[in-house]
Amino acid sequence: MNRPAIVLLSGGLDSATVLAIARDQGYACHTLSFDYGQRHRAELDAAARISEALGAISHRVVRIDLGTIGGSALTDDSLSVPTDGVGESIPITYVPARNMTFLSFAVGLGEVLEAQDIFIGVNAVDYSGYPDCRPEFIAALEQAANLGTKAGVGGHPFKIHTPLIHLAKAEIIRTGLALGVDYGLTVSCYQADEQGRACGVCDSCRLRRKGFEEAGVADPTRYQN
Amino acid sequence: MNRPAIVLLSGGLDSATVLAIARDQGYACHTLSFDYGQRHRAELDAAARISEALGAISHRVVRIDLGTIGGSALTDDSLSVPTDGVGESIPITYVPARNMTFLSFAVGLGEVLEAQDIFIGVNAVDYSGYPDCRPEFIAALEQAANLGTKAGVGGHPFKIHTPLIHLAKAEIIRTGLALGVDYGLTVSCYQADEQGRACGVCDSCRLRRKGFEEAGVADPTRYQN
Repeated sequence: MNRPAIVLLSGGLDSATVLAIARDQGYACHTLSFDYGQRHRAELDAAARISEALGAISHRVVRIDLGTIGGSALTDDSLSVPTDGVGESIPITYVPARNMTFLSFAVGLGEVLEAQDIFIGVNAVDYSGYPDCRPEFIAALEQAANLGTKAGVGGHPFKIHTPLIHLAKAEIIRTGLALGVDYGLTVSCYQADEQGRACGVCDSCRLRRKGFEEAGVADPTRYQN
Repeated sequence: MNRPAIVLLSGGLDSATVLAIARDQGYACHTLSFDYGQRHRAELDAAARISEALGAISHRVVRIDLGTIGGSALTDDSLSVPTDGVGESIPITYVPARNMTFLSFAVGLGEVLEAQDIFIGVNAVDYSGYPDCRPEFIAALEQAANLGTKAGVGGHPFKIHTPLIHLAKAEIIRTGLALGVDYGLTVSCYQADEQGRACGVCDSCRLRRKGFEEAGVADPTRYQN
């Protein structure tokens, strides 16, 4: 029997690739998505389609109310998503403690499903501005999970897998294509419309478009104009 | 100006005491409660009353859907709350990765409010069965927060305060009484009724009742019978 794994799935390019990688490694994948008041709800539709297309065993959407906390252009309508290019500093699209929160839920679900392996598509190359995409954070959170859970203290430690962490976007795309990912199903845009069409100008769109160019493959993204 | 702090507040005896301690230490307290599908919703009413009575600056309730994940008698109606006494092993009332999840939200709110101090009422004496009440877990999570957040990497590290961690229940009660806590406002029972009256027989009720006995003070708890 295949070992179970929890795969955090946003509906974007990176996490779809992670799901394909985990499946290729022989895991029975349970995908976990979050409805956290993000502007780009088309992502959640994409997550469901991707889960099905890539053979996930189950797919869950947990509603969490990050809007109550605020502080990010992705959850707070009073803040604008920047469209003028990728900068050096931590962007306003950073959601406070997002990956920490998401991983905590994944750990909880892992305990319930007796899955010790958790996959997350963090990337320290393109998202160098996000502190919660760095290997040292992931290692610290893994340790917290192993000290703070029934499973961890009971001899079933968690392993947080970050297969994309050191890959450039073009490498991620090539990896996914080799594993049969249909990137036309994925939505990466921070402000996609209801049909999942991308704006083409936010940081996420810019990184994605550049990735397809550098990978030398056609960009299947549907743009708004 | 008083330094801001985030205080996790369940509405029970322990977290009410923590709020009083944080306030006594001079913090401007922002309380954070969770509606996570717990059976004992009377707790949330209690949290609001306690926040007001103890002078919290703000009180937030974040809705999170732990029921989607399941695995605990506190969130899953198909599991029964044990009423036959406190055992040695991890109880079924353990909610997978609960404190990890709650602390992640507190860290996120801390970033937004620029509060570096987080207070949580974990206790390693009475809740020795809960791995997420141990000091080593708290230390690991604090480290993760400081590696994985904009605030932490930007020179504003978080400190997770656990003022109750080594106190017996009677000591917690004496501390709170000295600081003016009205324990009649608090609800600790795992299966309180809608009026907040306690069952008297779940683990939480047993520990609480014993605490008042050992502290030698009258128990203000309203029991169902």
